[in-house]
Amino acid sequence: MSIAVIKDVLGGKFAVGETVSVRGWVRTRRDSKAGISFINIHDGSCFDAVQAVAPNELNNYQSEVVKLTTGCSVIITGTVAESAGKGQAFELQATAVEVVGWVEDPDTYPMAPKRHSMEYLREFAHLRPRTNISGAVTRVRHCLAQAVHRFFDERSFYWISTPIITTSDAEGAGELFRVSTLDMTNLPLTEQGKVDYKEDFFGKEAFLTVSGQLNVETYACALSNVYTFGPTFRAENSNTSRHLAEFWMIEPEVAFADLEDVAKLAEDMLKYVFKAVLAERADDMAFFAERIDKEAISRLEHVIANDFVHMDYTDAVEILQNCGKEFTYPVSWGTDLQSEHERYLAEEHVGAPIILKNYPRDIKAFYMRQNDDGKTVAAMDVLAPGIGEIIGGSAREERLDMFDKRLDEMGLPKEEYSWYRDLRRYGTVPHAGFGLGFERLVAYVTGVQNIRDVIPFPRSPNNAEF
Amino acid sequence: MSIAVIKDVLGGKFAVGETVSVRGWVRTRRDSKAGISFINIHDGSCFDAVQAVAPNELNNYQSEVVKLTTGCSVIITGTVAESAGKGQAFELQATAVEVVGWVEDPDTYPMAPKRHSMEYLREFAHLRPRTNISGAVTRVRHCLAQAVHRFFDERSFYWISTPIITTSDAEGAGELFRVSTLDMTNLPLTEQGKVDYKEDFFGKEAFLTVSGQLNVETYACALSNVYTFGPTFRAENSNTSRHLAEFWMIEPEVAFADLEDVAKLAEDMLKYVFKAVLAERADDMAFFAERIDKEAISRLEHVIANDFVHMDYTDAVEILQNCGKEFTYPVSWGTDLQSEHERYLAEEHVGAPIILKNYPRDIKAFYMRQNDDGKTVAAMDVLAPGIGEIIGGSAREERLDMFDKRLDEMGLPKEEYSWYRDLRRYGTVPHAGFGLGFERLVAYVTGVQNIRDVIPFPRSPNNAEF
Repeated sequence: MSIAVIKDVLGGKFAVGETVSVRGWVRTRRDSKAGISFINIHDGSCFDAVQAVAPNELNNYQSEVVKLTTGCSVIITGTVAESAGKGQAFELQATAVEVVGWVEDPDTYPMAPKRHSMEYLREFAHLRPRTNISGAVTRVRHCLAQAVHRFFDERSFYWISTPIITTSDAEGAGELFRVSTLDMTNLPLTEQGKVDYKEDFFGKEAFLTVSGQLNVETYACALSNVYTFGPTFRAENSNTSRHLAEFWMIEPEVAFADLEDVAKLAEDMLKYVFKAVLAERADDMAFFAERIDKEAISRLEHVIANDFVHMDYTDAVEILQNCGKEFTYPVSWGTDLQSEHERYLAEEHVGAPIILKNYPRDIKAFYMRQNDDGKTVAAMDVLAPGIGEIIGGSAREERLDMFDKRLDEMGLPKEEYSWYRDLRRYGTVPHAGFGLGFERLVAYVTGVQNIRDVIPFPRSPNNAEF
Repeated sequence: MSIAVIKDVLGGKFAVGETVSVRGWVRTRRDSKAGISFINIHDGSCFDAVQAVAPNELNNYQSEVVKLTTGCSVIITGTVAESAGKGQAFELQATAVEVVGWVEDPDTYPMAPKRHSMEYLREFAHLRPRTNISGAVTRVRHCLAQAVHRFFDERSFYWISTPIITTSDAEGAGELFRVSTLDMTNLPLTEQGKVDYKEDFFGKEAFLTVSGQLNVETYACALSNVYTFGPTFRAENSNTSRHLAEFWMIEPEVAFADLEDVAKLAEDMLKYVFKAVLAERADDMAFFAERIDKEAISRLEHVIANDFVHMDYTDAVEILQNCGKEFTYPVSWGTDLQSEHERYLAEEHVGAPIILKNYPRDIKAFYMRQNDDGKTVAAMDVLAPGIGEIIGGSAREERLDMFDKRLDEMGLPKEEYSWYRDLRRYGTVPHAGFGLGFERLVAYVTGVQNIRDVIPFPRSPNNAEF
């Protein structure tokens, strides 16, 4: 007799008649009048539960089996049989049902077998992994993360763990979380009466990172092809379905690359991970297509099958101005595009992912490479139908004189960028990269609307439970 | 003509006579009296640099080629030739040398081609990736991380990104970093005059996590086989070669597993990743064995070839007491073992990795499963020759009554563990797991003495630069 994972039982890895034990949790139990119980058990190895048929001859049938409720943990031993019912090919004819853990007061068990709202499930983030949807999200999320690592590994990119705690706000990308060990009730002060961060753990004011990009550039300028995959933070007071205070980012950075190179890399990466998830998680994707978003599978197939359309920001503005559609926000050259514009372009105008390029420099970050027109920078956004911006990237300004000019224009002090400037002083190379918010990717793939439901323990304003 | 990565040129992927371009940075340049320059170029794709032979017929030979210094970035086009010198099989006969980026004032270039101390290199964490040792560490680190993910993926473990910011100090494992957006110069106070964390971003006092274990248990109790791989934090004022304020941890957690199961998993995992690094990074490992630690390769081979020795804590104490060796710290049953004891056991007594099990419960964490003797818990440490403890793990107390008793004994409030207790109230299962500090693993594999040199941007007291 061997321990079997349910995926292998349902996948036909065991011969009919073979005796195996499965270990997991009861999803449902149904009793027939003939004195047989049908118990569905899941163990997380795949979307489906396996059905065990427990006859009333089992010596604990009356005392235990008919008392099993959703969430009880069990070890069920039985012989593999072809399933008479539809759905699964195999089931177990139980010869022993061992109850490992009961559910205390089944009537109040928070994960009782009925439809729960996503908001409700979020409040039970420690129990929601037991639900169909949370299990499916977890497996798809895992599959996507593995595919991302594999994609880069196959292309000889090295994973770089850029720092989480940083003393530089070099990105200037938004509100920061402070990291400190100072005693808040007895703060050390300088002679000027300010908080004396020299006394703090790092001897300086320290924050949680908003991006690993500037750090990972130092590795691109030595090892050529690198990427980050780690948590990043935004202390923004945004309570939306697209924002988290803590989220994971993927940021490849490539030496000797220009914007076209990383646009190609972004397209290849998205297609690669979409193919992986369709091939490896067909069971979970079928669930998402059936229950969450009927386009879940076809949307990915569509992206895989089509070339991404490249479009200049300037052309996009013209298209939006002349399309005859009324937008909430007006469009003019020099302003940032809103979600409604991005979605119009991707969904209605082109009907495919768009790589929008060469944005006005005044609406983009200081490190982006200036184009020869003096007005735009080599920046791109990848806009996907159904979600809008999913990737943002750029070529980086590698020319020291141009970079210094930009710092001056923006009133940024050179001293604070001394190590970043060193990359331009010593063997500078053209380089480019992009950033992809991992949770937005998981939301896009699964069709789950709120990104708080695609990360195990979401953090947002007033919420860091568990 | 094609762009070639240096790994492929040296690996013989291009035919002799074929024209290729390599892109990278100059490691060294040497000129012969005959008017030929030998330029070594690295691009990070492998340990070795490729040699380009540049003749004085090149039209920029006098104006540029002979002025190239370490760190300059170049694109060199040439024909692949068999190398006359020893070391490499192939070299390039350069037909064009394009200088992409000069080194400003080569005399002061911090990465000049001489031997630098590790301490010196740490001060230039943005430039040290260009050195041989830092490049080799980066590739080995990447290889180990990939192997860890692959190991778990092949065994159907799911990667769970447990939260970085947490409001629970449930682990009680040490000093915490506070995460806050409160205005330090104008702290909101409660009526009692305490800091009012209700006004803070998360509406509560929040910290950086010290471990994902308790969180990941919630996923093990639903999906059976899971693991974390992410950053964790310790605000300890320890300036040692084995401590970092920010480091990466790997924490598998397995449902229906006992201590023996995860001891086996730990052994399998270490052997798997060691095999991977010997097979995939032979070039870098040869460097470590030659220049950093002559045991670097043989140590791994030894671990791979031998079964880990299982030993009870109680037996270990007896061995240490009777071995006749003088230790700085005396040994008696009930005290924690010191590094000197661990190393004696692994290096001198056994000469192989040891899995030390069943520690006195009073020196171990509250969540560990009590053994039937009432005195010990099902905890283990994996002790490796040459480094001491590398992995710590345990079976978790899954019995609610036993767990509650332990909380009471330790004076810990049940309310704070309500979600953790829920796992024991609803379909509890035996489960076990372990934790592995990733940087300690990289240090062990490479032989690099200080773990600050195996993470890109180390964080320690008074140091969070870059």
